[in-house]
Amino acid sequence: MVQPGRLIGLGVGPGDPELITVKALRLLRESPVVAYFVAKGKKGNAFGIIEAHLQGAQTLMPLVYPVTTEALPAPLSYEQIISDFYDQAAVDVAQHLQAGRDVAVICEGDPFFYGSYMYLHDRLAQQFEAQVVPGVCSMLGGASVLGVPLVYRNQSLSVLSGVLPHEELKRRLADADAAVIMKLGRNFHKVREVLSELGLAERALYVERATMSNQKIVPFNDVDPLSSPYFSLIIVPGERWQG
Amino acid sequence: MVQPGRLIGLGVGPGDPELITVKALRLLRESPVVAYFVAKGKKGNAFGIIEAHLQGAQTLMPLVYPVTTEALPAPLSYEQIISDFYDQAAVDVAQHLQAGRDVAVICEGDPFFYGSYMYLHDRLAQQFEAQVVPGVCSMLGGASVLGVPLVYRNQSLSVLSGVLPHEELKRRLADADAAVIMKLGRNFHKVREVLSELGLAERALYVERATMSNQKIVPFNDVDPLSSPYFSLIIVPGERWQG
Repeated sequence: MVQPGRLIGLGVGPGDPELITVKALRLLRESPVVAYFVAKGKKGNAFGIIEAHLQGAQTLMPLVYPVTTEALPAPLSYEQIISDFYDQAAVDVAQHLQAGRDVAVICEGDPFFYGSYMYLHDRLAQQFEAQVVPGVCSMLGGASVLGVPLVYRNQSLSVLSGVLPHEELKRRLADADAAVIMKLGRNFHKVREVLSELGLAERALYVERATMSNQKIVPFNDVDPLSSPYFSLIIVPGERWQG
Repeated sequence: MVQPGRLIGLGVGPGDPELITVKALRLLRESPVVAYFVAKGKKGNAFGIIEAHLQGAQTLMPLVYPVTTEALPAPLSYEQIISDFYDQAAVDVAQHLQAGRDVAVICEGDPFFYGSYMYLHDRLAQQFEAQVVPGVCSMLGGASVLGVPLVYRNQSLSVLSGVLPHEELKRRLADADAAVIMKLGRNFHKVREVLSELGLAERALYVERATMSNQKIVPFNDVDPLSSPYFSLIIVPGERWQG
């Protein structure tokens, strides 16, 4: 019987291909199979980041999401469809592992920080050897291009999803020393309202696709809520500590 | 007049020298001056991470903290002493910049995530060109070696300092979907008490010096509060989303 392959969750960083770690680059090049989650008809951010580093002999394994929105007409259930999809993806990946081939699952940012890799890990890590290579996450990529220290000393940092309801967002932001709000897209308008109500709009900074070649920094009050992409984020940095 | 040098905040990752990014490694090698914060008599974590990558001709610039504890006998003031120290460090770094030499300030983890680099940035970035290279932060290094997904989907993540008072820690942890508690050291006992009171001790994971060569993973309930180092952290991962 062959020695099973390793499942490798490979963080490739926030977008700039140079922001991949030396370790992720080495393991990427050593992996016979490279898997990645991707929307139908798209190339995928993670794949775009590492494309230039691939060797010819590697097997590419796109894992194509069956849906692109969580809002589906009844009787369709997003939870059910996406759960079935991850089950099937795990089966497909497991075939390579059982045949003795390592599978590197490339992940934009970090694999364990809101990454889809986690759903494969939860399904396979009991059965196969799994290794995770952490990556630079998008919020730190965002802070770096905005040129703003994120969180000082003993301040608390809250990382929040723009999907949260107005009142929950407001409660959590009111209690945060510093905050990052991800998953904006169609939630931008609501999030800006909440920040304005809290008097935090003045401190808020906004960036789209941080560190990618099509990165865009827009003054917070000038953002068009209808054109804010999913890969944008808001940072409310901690108050400067005098040090 | 010479063109002034650039101030470069260089994230070198959580400890494993291979977890430096390709970009940070390139800029490190290109910088004529390499500065780093360090405690008196120590080598420094950031320096240990990049030591093997240095070229012979680079100027090393240790910035040695004048104190190692915040608890000082009156009339000494930690805030005043550390503020004066950062002022002087900024003056020293500025001399190199004015002479046209880039200064790379190496930072364990990420420069804008609780890093001392921020105090130089706040003092110099108005006057000199500054560039920040984000790095893999310690909490993601910790999650990777613990093998545990940190935060799912629309969960909120709270990053907290172990220095916080018991009641504030308790309030913030009670409201968190997932949490990371840093700066443990002598605060470990208090933090474990809080987690136990909230029924979260079962979910808590603990690691010391994640990804470093002397990394240590200890079951949460077995940690000796008297020997927990400053560079340890606790992760309370988000509840698994069925996906």
